[in-house]
This record gives sequence, C-alpha cells and structure tokens, in this order.
Amino acid sequence: MTATTSAQRPLTLLGLGDMGTALARTWLAAGHPLTVWNRTAAKAEALAGEGAAVAATAAEAVAANGLVVVCLLDDASVGAALDGADLSGKDVVNLTTGRPSEGRARAAWAAERGARFVDAGIMATPVMIGNPGAYVLYSGSRALVDAHRPTLEVPAAVRYVGEDPGHAALYDVALLSAMYGMFGGISHAFALIEGEDVAPKELAPLLSEWLGAMGFFVGNAAERLTSRDFTSGVVSNLAMQVAATGTLLRTAEEQGVSTELILPYVELMRRRLAAGGGAHAGEDTAGAITLLKR
Amino acid sequence: MTATTSAQRPLTLLGLGDMGTALARTWLAAGHPLTVWNRTAAKAEALAGEGAAVAATAAEAVAANGLVVVCLLDDASVGAALDGADLSGKDVVNLTTGRPSEGRARAAWAAERGARFVDAGIMATPVMIGNPGAYVLYSGSRALVDAHRPTLEVPAAVRYVGEDPGHAALYDVALLSAMYGMFGGISHAFALIEGEDVAPKELAPLLSEWLGAMGFFVGNAAERLTSRDFTSGVVSNLAMQVAATGTLLRTAEEQGVSTELILPYVELMRRRLAAGGGAHAGEDTAGAITLLKR
Repeated sequence: MTATTSAQRPLTLLGLGDMGTALARTWLAAGHPLTVWNRTAAKAEALAGEGAAVAATAAEAVAANGLVVVCLLDDASVGAALDGADLSGKDVVNLTTGRPSEGRARAAWAAERGARFVDAGIMATPVMIGNPGAYVLYSGSRALVDAHRPTLEVPAAVRYVGEDPGHAALYDVALLSAMYGMFGGISHAFALIEGEDVAPKELAPLLSEWLGAMGFFVGNAAERLTSRDFTSGVVSNLAMQVAATGTLLRTAEEQGVSTELILPYVELMRRRLAAGGGAHAGEDTAGAITLLKR
Repeated sequence: MTATTSAQRPLTLLGLGDMGTALARTWLAAGHPLTVWNRTAAKAEALAGEGAAVAATAAEAVAANGLVVVCLLDDASVGAALDGADLSGKDVVNLTTGRPSEGRARAAWAAERGARFVDAGIMATPVMIGNPGAYVLYSGSRALVDAHRPTLEVPAAVRYVGEDPGHAALYDVALLSAMYGMFGGISHAFALIEGEDVAPKELAPLLSEWLGAMGFFVGNAAERLTSRDFTSGVVSNLAMQVAATGTLLRTAEEQGVSTELILPYVELMRRRLAAGGGAHAGEDTAGAITLLKR
C-alpha cells in the first residue's frame, strides 16, 4: 500500500519584504494555497499573479488559515500588524528577527490570545531560501513544529532548539555574532597584506585552511566550559599566547594597519592572565570566556 | 633501476625550547646526523642520549654543518647567538617567530656574512611537529629551500611563499591574527548562552557548521579586494547588515555580556556606511577592510 497524496496545506504569510517574498515563492511553487498580506499593497499584488490570495488587512489574512507565518521588519511591526486580529486557535510562526526577550514576550502575548507560538531565526539570506544549506531555528511549541513540519520545510530546513521561545533568537544572535568576530579577523589579515607584493588570492587559500583547522576551538571551548577545567591537556597556554601576541600587534603597527579588530581579544587574554596573580597562566584561552559575562 | 638511498643529510639546530626539542626529535628519528646547541646546556644533554652531537658554543655548532636551523626565543636572541659565528657559505633557516621587518633585516644581515637565508613561520604547536597538518611557511632564498626540501619536510610540510624574506612572517601574523578574531567571535557566542538552559555542546555543532559556511567571506573578500568592486552581486548589503547588528548588541546587553569583542567590527561597518554620504550602503562588507590601512 502506498500513502495517498493529500493537497498541500494552506497557510498565511504576513510580510513581503525580500525575505517574505522569497518564502512566499517557495510555498506557491510547492503548491501550497497561500494568503498574503503586506503593509504596502504593491508587493502583494506581484504575488497575486503567481497564485497568492491577497488579503486587504492582516486580520483578514489571519482569519483565512490556521497556520500564520509572520516575517516583518521587527517585533514592534508584529504587534502592530496583529493588533485586532483574532488569534484564537491559530498556530503562529514568527520569523521576524528579534532578541530572545522579544521572542519570550511575544510567546506570552500569543498565549494570552489563545494561539500556539514558535519564534524563529532564519539562518539564510533571501537568495538562499529554497536551496540546500538554508535553515531556520525554531523554539517554543514543539507540537506546533511537529504539526507543520512538512510545510515549514519547504523554504528551509527545520531545526528545533527547545521549548524556550527565546532560544531561537539566542542561537541566531550567537551564530551571527561569532560570524562578525571571524569577519573581523579575516578583514585584519587582508589589511596586513595591503601594499605588499602579496595578492589577496594568494593569502586566501591558506587563510581558509587555517581558520578551518583552528575551528577546533569551538569544540574545545564547549568541553572546557562544560567541565570548567581550563588546564588539562593545554597545547598552547595563555601565558605563551599573550607573549606571542606582541608580535601580532607590532606587525600591524609596522604595516600601518589599525589594531582595533584584534586588540580586544588580546586584551581579554591579558586580563585573564593578570587575574588571580597568574593563577590562569597555564590555562587554555577558553578560560578567558568567563570574563565576558558581567 | 631504483635510486640508491644515500645517508640522510646532517644539520645543525640552535635552540631547544619546546619547539626546538620537538624539531630535533623528528630529525633524529629520521636518521639525520644532528648537532645541537642551547643557551642552557641541560636540554641539549637530554638530546645527546637520543643521538645528537652537542656543541659547546653556537659558533661551534654552526661550523659543524652547512645547514643551520635557528629556533630561538626572538630575533634579538638570534643576533646574540650568531654573533661571532662564521656564516660564510652557510644555509641559514630562521624558524624564530618574528615580524616581517625582522625577517628582512636578518636576511640582509646574513647576506652580508655570506650566508643564504630563509625566514620561516611555524604553523603548528610543538605537539603537532612530525604529524600531518603541521606546516612551515618559508620565504627568502628559493635555492636554499629547493636544496634542503627533503630535510625541511621531516618535521613539517614546506610551504614556500616567495623571495621577500619578510613574507613568511607576514603570512604567519596574518593567519594568527585572523584566528584570534575568530576566537573572539566564538568566545562571545558561548558567553551569550551562559546562564541559559543551553549547553555549550548544544551550540557547538551549529556554531562550527555556521562558521564553516560563512568562511566563504575569505574568498569573497579576496575577489573584491582584487577587483576593487564591492557592489556587484551583493547578497546582504552594508546598510542591511549595520541595521541588523543593533539586535546583536542589544541582545548582548540583555544577556549581561560585554560587547567588547563584537563592537569593533560593527563600528568599522558603521564608519564605512557613514563615509561618502551613504555611497557605500549597497556594498559588500568587504569594502570596510579598506578603512583599516592607515
């Protein structure tokens, strides 16, 4: 026996910026009946030609379907759009970028109105939507994610990270923040070779390979932060690393490159080394992470 | 016909710190006659038991062989150790960590004394020496590297990056600086989840995967810095990225985490966005790299 194919499930999407439009197109292409609303109507009309039903108001769009996906500018826009809509019995998926505190507050707000809710963080740019590699972090109601997984998986892979509706945003912000740290390091490296007889494309493969190898720090830090053991099996200790960073800073100065992107981490290591009268000298640099939380 | 095996070539090594000792052991294990010298004799004596010839002075060690490898604390130590040694006709490989300017000055100094010279940067910790993945960057005399490649490849893979004797140190510093930027980003990410019901080992695989994917920035930056085209085919432009970073900074504040490690890159992007009356708003973030060089 084979399963009978059922019609694709209908849904509503609020917000048709670049990301919302990309999402809408994947659902329409996959055959999902889609009701859309956007604050300015022009973008919705473009999608009407591709098969979307256009609602005149957000409340009308919410009324059309049980699954309501929201992808607006910010959390304030979500509150403004849904003010006056009847959310009772609805499943609300909030793809709007925000902070953990906003995800939690919006989840409580949705619960008061009788809706199931998940907050989400889209780990992709609009052009990546519908392509391999794109994924969305979800947290909040597991039942909601389980109920709508096939629909949610149409634009991007689904990664559920727990019941706390603040955690999708927390993971999202953690990943993006780490990325900007890495971008800063990469930027500094390329600035160092500017004016030298070294082409950026000569440095690039060595840089990619080195950062890939040094990515071991993620797993190393996770293990040490869990065990709170920063001293066992240390390959290159804090005192040695701090001593060696003098060469990095002086080289930047000699190359005429600002140290602004690498100095903060060097100073964090120096603070850890100075703390406790040298008690941390033999530690892994992961120990310095404990100084960041106030 | 098969090639006849010849005896492994002899060499001299100055400096027996953790790194020098690790290097010495790989050459001894591979059957190379090795003459060693160290400022304090105890470490040399330990290697004598493993087959090394111990020289009483650096000058005597230099006299023993045509290939002289130097692995000391810093460039001043190199000058002090080799002061009075006869370098005429010698091949000097300087594995001592230093700045590009030191590599260039030391190359000129060696040339004045009749030696061929390469400067080098070891991209490995002592425990990695002799194992896959370890490599050494070399720059300066290509003829020297070609002449001694089989010997140099015993402790670590050889990567020759050009005739400029400052470039091995420049690449070395560029890679390490980029690494510390990445470590800073990773540190910030883990600090964000501290005190939350998220285990570091839950975040770690997502973080590793995300940084791997975002490593595309290396190649992207190299291409744009070469073409000086920061606007074609931009996926996520500077204005959008700067707007989105507000969420990252406010989340850090709400989580009680210092923004010191991510703020500098955010501020660099903001400066680029503010420059030229918004002319760079549609650019890739790689354009911000041009602000770092003074």
